[in-house]
Amino acid sequence: MATHRFDPKFTDNVINAMGPKTSPRMRQLMTGLIKHVHDFARENELTVDEWMAGVKMLNWAGQMSDDKRNEGQLVCDVIGLESLVDEITFTLADEAKDAPTATAILGPFFRADTPWRENGEDIVKTKPGDGEMAYMHGQVVDFTSKKPLVGATVEVWQASTNGLYEQQDSEQEEFNLRGKFRTDEQGRYGFYCLRPTPYPVPDDGPAGKLLELMDRHPFRPAHIHIIATYSGYRPLTTQIFDRRDTYLDNDSVFAVKDSLVVDFVPRTGDPQAALELEYDVKLVANGSA
Amino acid sequence: MATHRFDPKFTDNVINAMGPKTSPRMRQLMTGLIKHVHDFARENELTVDEWMAGVKMLNWAGQMSDDKRNEGQLVCDVIGLESLVDEITFTLADEAKDAPTATAILGPFFRADTPWRENGEDIVKTKPGDGEMAYMHGQVVDFTSKKPLVGATVEVWQASTNGLYEQQDSEQEEFNLRGKFRTDEQGRYGFYCLRPTPYPVPDDGPAGKLLELMDRHPFRPAHIHIIATYSGYRPLTTQIFDRRDTYLDNDSVFAVKDSLVVDFVPRTGDPQAALELEYDVKLVANGSA
Repeated sequence: MATHRFDPKFTDNVINAMGPKTSPRMRQLMTGLIKHVHDFARENELTVDEWMAGVKMLNWAGQMSDDKRNEGQLVCDVIGLESLVDEITFTLADEAKDAPTATAILGPFFRADTPWRENGEDIVKTKPGDGEMAYMHGQVVDFTSKKPLVGATVEVWQASTNGLYEQQDSEQEEFNLRGKFRTDEQGRYGFYCLRPTPYPVPDDGPAGKLLELMDRHPFRPAHIHIIATYSGYRPLTTQIFDRRDTYLDNDSVFAVKDSLVVDFVPRTGDPQAALELEYDVKLVANGSA
Repeated sequence: MATHRFDPKFTDNVINAMGPKTSPRMRQLMTGLIKHVHDFARENELTVDEWMAGVKMLNWAGQMSDDKRNEGQLVCDVIGLESLVDEITFTLADEAKDAPTATAILGPFFRADTPWRENGEDIVKTKPGDGEMAYMHGQVVDFTSKKPLVGATVEVWQASTNGLYEQQDSEQEEFNLRGKFRTDEQGRYGFYCLRPTPYPVPDDGPAGKLLELMDRHPFRPAHIHIIATYSGYRPLTTQIFDRRDTYLDNDSVFAVKDSLVVDFVPRTGDPQAALELEYDVKLVANGSA
């Protein structure tokens, strides 16, 4: 029964317009989406001007997006949706006892065409003057047996100290601070990178406008993105966060989890880097419960 | 209290990130939007792939949109949101006793740069072979006093018989089937147009994809769009629907209201048109209750 003063049949009419060939999952999702969108509009007595402002923001997001930038995703990120969907995925996997390493959002700056690099390589192709060099390394192992996974893929990406990923910054060499590594015979990977630094998400589009309207800062705590994959295992998308960062408690995209916070430690005897981070990745075989 | 098994603080954290300078209305709308979007994701255990498919649809809508096409609006239309916002506006105005003529959605094909035309002019600049000509005319009056409003603006637009508005169809002269008229000394307007015909909304973008996924037809019942304005009066946006249309009960954008259904009648002695539609518009003065 309707608890509002608008046409009580309107929402059901829209939902019931779906035909018999709609898939069950699509019917479930569209029913939920239509109900929530309509309830939102009625509860707040949304005006034509407000709705139109929303349409303009969404169109603007699409117009800014291309193969190097995904503004629609960033708009979702600043209202916590990507992190929430990640939490849902992780919680369901955890209940099924298969979530060994906490996941985190992909973010809008992933590039599918990132090149392969050799273990031990330096991904800092354009070195910023204020960058601190670090050697990041670790092992990819099977979650249950702890056996090293040989030939697993570890893909990483990070922003430079000016807060920009290479595709946002014409001063950076293409694919700077990105790389795909294959684990060696001991399941090990390793590369030189920057100690990550906090940065604001891009604020020249609708996501930035939303943050401004919500009187929020755009900063993300310092982090490195990781995707690890191995044939026959569930792929893992995550981020690791530097414990010293001041934005750990108020990430603009709500992605921080305690188990993803790591410590960079001093490294001695290496002229290439004064810091070190050891980080092991545990993957779960498909079908294991 | 959370009734789900996910982080019970997550949604409040996102809402509470809003700073003190957020306007009260923005805080209300974003609080409602974040709650509904998060509830939608949790209730349906939205997956990363499903969320990403949604982001792609929204970006695609923006990429298709320009000054002649608004696909983000069309996506809202097929889930009933524009019609719902219109109903909310109309209901609130009606409760305030100032809604003499039912409103309807603007739709994505309005053009702000539509040219002025003379009363009695034919807006059918590119005549389709299967078009039926009609003379549409009427008076714009003050709702309360019934006094004619001299010099009021009546703007109209309609699709051709192939279902396309002029900006969608390179075969149609620019501004075909559109016009802005000023009422004469008796408050009268009049022009030749086509008897409107049903047509499908464009299905080459995300709105069409959504309709397909929901197993719905894309047709709108035959209609003519109208915007009427007069200085010191509330502007009116509406559509009128031809009673003979088979899609009156299942408009793909849910815009039909009984009071907007009109009858075309035979017209005699006019070589330019065999049909006629008389339609008066009642406007309400600003500030009248």
